[in-house]
Amino acid sequence: MSMNNLGIVRRSIERAERSAVAELARFGVATIHEAMGRVGLMKPSIRPIYPGAHVCGTAVTVLLQPGDNWMLHVAAEQLQDGDVVVAACTTDTDDGYFGDLLATSFRARGGRGLIIDGGVRDVKDLAAMQFPVFSRAISARGTVKATLGSVNVPVVCAGALVHPGDVVIADDDGVVVVPAAIARQAADAAAAREASEADKRKRLAAGELGLDMYRMREPLAKAGLKYVD
Amino acid sequence: MSMNNLGIVRRSIERAERSAVAELARFGVATIHEAMGRVGLMKPSIRPIYPGAHVCGTAVTVLLQPGDNWMLHVAAEQLQDGDVVVAACTTDTDDGYFGDLLATSFRARGGRGLIIDGGVRDVKDLAAMQFPVFSRAISARGTVKATLGSVNVPVVCAGALVHPGDVVIADDDGVVVVPAAIARQAADAAAAREASEADKRKRLAAGELGLDMYRMREPLAKAGLKYVD
Amino acid sequence: MSMNNLGIVRRSIERAERSAVAELARFGVATIHEAMGRVGLMKPSIRPIYPGAHVCGTAVTVLLQPGDNWMLHVAAEQLQDGDVVVAACTTDTDDGYFGDLLATSFRARGGRGLIIDGGVRDVKDLAAMQFPVFSRAISARGTVKATLGSVNVPVVCAGALVHPGDVVIADDDGVVVVPAAIARQAADAAAAREASEADKRKRLAAGELGLDMYRMREPLAKAGLKYVD
Amino acid sequence: MSMNNLGIVRRSIERAERSAVAELARFGVATIHEAMGRVGLMKPSIRPIYPGAHVCGTAVTVLLQPGDNWMLHVAAEQLQDGDVVVAACTTDTDDGYFGDLLATSFRARGGRGLIIDGGVRDVKDLAAMQFPVFSRAISARGTVKATLGSVNVPVVCAGALVHPGDVVIADDDGVVVVPAAIARQAADAAAAREASEADKRKRLAAGELGLDMYRMREPLAKAGLKYVD
Amino acid sequence: MSMNNLGIVRRSIERAERSAVAELARFGVATIHEAMGRVGLMKPSIRPIYPGAHVCGTAVTVLLQPGDNWMLHVAAEQLQDGDVVVAACTTDTDDGYFGDLLATSFRARGGRGLIIDGGVRDVKDLAAMQFPVFSRAISARGTVKATLGSVNVPVVCAGALVHPGDVVIADDDGVVVVPAAIARQAADAAAAREASEADKRKRLAAGELGLDMYRMREPLAKAGLKYVD
Amino acid sequence: MSMNNLGIVRRSIERAERSAVAELARFGVATIHEAMGRVGLMKPSIRPIYPGAHVCGTAVTVLLQPGDNWMLHVAAEQLQDGDVVVAACTTDTDDGYFGDLLATSFRARGGRGLIIDGGVRDVKDLAAMQFPVFSRAISARGTVKATLGSVNVPVVCAGALVHPGDVVIADDDGVVVVPAAIARQAADAAAAREASEADKRKRLAAGELGLDMYRMREPLAKAGLKYVD
Repeated sequence: MSMNNLGIVRRSIERAERSAVAELARFGVATIHEAMGRVGLMKPSIRPIYPGAHVCGTAVTVLLQPGDNWMLHVAAEQLQDGDVVVAACTTDTDDGYFGDLLATSFRARGGRGLIIDGGVRDVKDLAAMQFPVFSRAISARGTVKATLGSVNVPVVCAGALVHPGDVVIADDDGVVVVPAAIARQAADAAAAREASEADKRKRLAAGELGLDMYRMREPLAKAGLKYVD
Repeated sequence: MSMNNLGIVRRSIERAERSAVAELARFGVATIHEAMGRVGLMKPSIRPIYPGAHVCGTAVTVLLQPGDNWMLHVAAEQLQDGDVVVAACTTDTDDGYFGDLLATSFRARGGRGLIIDGGVRDVKDLAAMQFPVFSRAISARGTVKATLGSVNVPVVCAGALVHPGDVVIADDDGVVVVPAAIARQAADAAAAREASEADKRKRLAAGELGLDMYRMREPLAKAGLKYVD
Repeated sequence: MSMNNLGIVRRSIERAERSAVAELARFGVATIHEAMGRVGLMKPSIRPIYPGAHVCGTAVTVLLQPGDNWMLHVAAEQLQDGDVVVAACTTDTDDGYFGDLLATSFRARGGRGLIIDGGVRDVKDLAAMQFPVFSRAISARGTVKATLGSVNVPVVCAGALVHPGDVVIADDDGVVVVPAAIARQAADAAAAREASEADKRKRLAAGELGLDMYRMREPLAKAGLKYVD
Repeated sequence: MSMNNLGIVRRSIERAERSAVAELARFGVATIHEAMGRVGLMKPSIRPIYPGAHVCGTAVTVLLQPGDNWMLHVAAEQLQDGDVVVAACTTDTDDGYFGDLLATSFRARGGRGLIIDGGVRDVKDLAAMQFPVFSRAISARGTVKATLGSVNVPVVCAGALVHPGDVVIADDDGVVVVPAAIARQAADAAAAREASEADKRKRLAAGELGLDMYRMREPLAKAGLKYVD
Repeated sequence: MSMNNLGIVRRSIERAERSAVAELARFGVATIHEAMGRVGLMKPSIRPIYPGAHVCGTAVTVLLQPGDNWMLHVAAEQLQDGDVVVAACTTDTDDGYFGDLLATSFRARGGRGLIIDGGVRDVKDLAAMQFPVFSRAISARGTVKATLGSVNVPVVCAGALVHPGDVVIADDDGVVVVPAAIARQAADAAAAREASEADKRKRLAAGELGLDMYRMREPLAKAGLKYVD
Repeated sequence: MSMNNLGIVRRSIERAERSAVAELARFGVATIHEAMGRVGLMKPSIRPIYPGAHVCGTAVTVLLQPGDNWMLHVAAEQLQDGDVVVAACTTDTDDGYFGDLLATSFRARGGRGLIIDGGVRDVKDLAAMQFPVFSRAISARGTVKATLGSVNVPVVCAGALVHPGDVVIADDDGVVVVPAAIARQAADAAAAREASEADKRKRLAAGELGLDMYRMREPLAKAGLKYVD
């Protein structure tokens, strides 16, 4: 029995229900993160490579070796329409694992975007293609194709555990992962949260204080807050 | 006697003279920093969340606890027209302490912007609102409301000491703090500096060398500079 | 005999052949880096100060002392049309060594841009001037003119060795250095690479897999890759 | 159904077989990591707080909130003899979540050490107690007890997924996690590796080259390595 | 009127009461920080240069310019027996501002140690001298003597505001600043805290749980903590 | 003609004169750095893996690929008595490229130590062997042997240019590189500096101020320093 998940490509994965994914696509990352009870975020080191990049899809996961992008080519074959590639690396590096050629290939196979805890390049072309990429770095550094990683195994990407088929949503605020099994539930909770926020926004815009709207005055006083002149 | 400034909200603060603030608003951060004799800057880790963000106003200071944005709600009530919230944290974290709801509330109360040595979220909405925010990070991570900090006490924010009522100016180059007592003097010095720079710019554009314009050749030679072929 | 290269300005340097520079200007940083066999890059910490900044030219090198920009003024006199200033520092600091006045001077003397392993300021003005700057930081912090560095000595800038006269190309993907002696050869190799990529892009866009196009299936199998369901 | 694992303490966890844990305790972190096929490591940001710290035991996992160590107190009750506490945090902070009082409590309940992706304090006392702690930081900063995290849920700690009951081994080289189900297999593989290394060490000490011992000359030549004078 | 505190040496400063300093010297940094209500700490980036370094004394403050240690020489003259030099810098750099010669001078003038938000060198000699130094870096890089900073002005050092004469205590856990005016009160509070900890340590060592000793079970249940099997 | 130095092993290199190396071994890194006129240092990110590590020898240089230590094995064959391996990497990573087996091999072939801009492991064993290693990280992460780098080409290691045969000196203060051609001159200058420091140390220990000894009072006054009470 193998003691690790290296050198493996899993072909059949269970993707989150398509309609739940579509529902989640309507919400921002912060809203979904809150709706799930403040979990699921990747670290804030993962940033969009162009302003306004946004993606929502089902994860095809990749585990890369340092300075080696072989598995991204392997992953391309496993893509279905609506997938987002989520690439972790066994080691923190900023190398440019991905560029416009791979983006062209991913898109041709149904891929909607890339989340990578590593670097990417050709960012001007990627922006022109409007292919959403979220990465820890931008680097022109090329990579080799020499050592096996894996495709569609569970990975830890930028501090978040991602299973193949999970929903991944990324926007200017970061990246959130929704386990496939709770995609519908998370979408419903996000919708509820968004509805409640609209009302709050209106009241705050009218000058009502959060202190009153959220009834904070009593707990603040109880905690000992003192007003002085 | 309390040994710290925690759990306190100071309601009456002395804001810098309004006309001096208006004067300072005309100048860039670098100019004001130079005019004061190269002091007053926050660390360059504080960056605008959208290009072109710019703000000048009087500081309402906040001291936050890690992962806790309770005091931002408390601060909203202390805002007057023309204020900028300056939020320090007892600990370095990138959590998303602030988003579009608080921005809506701050603006409704007269707040002009936010400087925070922490993270913020809803950055797309904040950009759409043109609500200027300068932060150390962007993160969707939510925060709690459980532990007291303070409002309108002196804080150290990104390496700069800020008293409530000081003038804070922020643009693409960073953030500078002008103590309320010297706001007028700093504005005058900035105006003088800007005037002198216009002439220099013209001469340099015409091909004159800084070596000559600033009379550097003699001190360089004295320091031992050698020209070789 | 001096044991270091400090306090020296070299006036006569051998610049890369002008036509080769023009040729290289047509290609992106990633392409040139790959064409040379994956060498020549500066670290990814050097970033453009505005999106779309791009420059290609011959290096006039500068070695700065921490918090001291004296040598940038000295360098201005050594500029010829088509030069790019490459500024290293004896120490890592983020101070703002460069702003719009120096940019005005550099441009007036033929300078095309700046690569600096330090900070810069006046970034809004620099963007408005479309003067391409690539730096490790943005900071309003001013610098002094007190200690000698050098101009046109070999420098290590952001991890890359740069000789005066080398070609430096910078775009959204980073910065690459091409030794003057191989500028023509690198340009030819970049052209060849770009030609071959156009065909690959077309095939990938049509849905062909990199696995097949690059004939990776056999080496992957030999390395032990396993497909499972 | 809850969408997250917050606010939960799991009392009954399946610990790795005791004899396998004892076996693993004989080996270093690097050996075990290699024996499993190069997996299982936490990031190198986790360091021992005193030289020579070493621990091997079964994980009781903790998920902390930023600047809040409440759950460490909750975890103490769940400890059994031979356990090691593995504490992740929902946010990266360096606060001092742990000190000599908690160490005293952990040890009294059977705890053998602590791995924490956060800060600790009282390090002089901890060293005097020889209580092994591996942390991302040392900080005197105190924490509150206000917000729920969890105990004995799966956590991602410094980039590694840890389930309660897994074996955790930490020494000067870092921290490795061995899933409970393969503890025996990993121990056997580590033993095999160590045996083979002893022979290699002897041959290398006698001056034999790795090039010959590992038969690298042919693959190096095939890869194109050139010897020049 | 000067708009900054540069170029100034204040000769007469009010040092904290000597007996209060002696009292504070008995306690660790974490204890004093807690006793003051969790304030006063420098950032954890400041570390002792040798294990076991410990110092307590009254601050003589220094503001340095980047790569320039002139003001440390100026500070030497201002030292009185029992002083600790606290050196901030206008810019973050790791240069080696201080070495064994300055330590010899400081000690000869009554100086007890150094806290510096910069680098130091000759660390082997400093350890041999048992001259306690706490710094952000170790670096052999030399510095110049060209630009004025200040001595005995208020400084922000590693995030903490320090006035000349304040008490500074540093040990393996970090550095804490006690304002001169509350030195006695802080010492008393630290003594009280230490006394209460001794009892707690004994109870925890006997196996009592913090959950019970601190009466946490009820608030945890109220917060919603669930125990599951 | 190759455009890069990859895939090359240079067998005949010109090492610095043996007696000059022996002379340099008597001095600390800071002294040599100063004696050469404040040049030659690697970045302070390179630290000894155990306190008191010290090495002086002639450089055998290695250029590594990320996560690949093949070239270290190739380098072993090129070692002569008194050599120190200086390993740069094309990419910043913290992987554990080196451990006790390679140290055993290096030592058996005459190697005296290792400077590496990457990670190492087996640090307890390396300390027990007293094999001096200076690295940017400690990590148990294993590496592959798949991609060619080079041996004995000029490399940029931690910001310093190193040619094969240069003298490399490393101690607790960092790492300095002395070009082979000036080894003798640097040794002489270091000796002169050390002699002059002994006298200064004595005078400072007797209470004389640097202000007087270095005649700083006049230049300080000229620069505008003001003493106030």
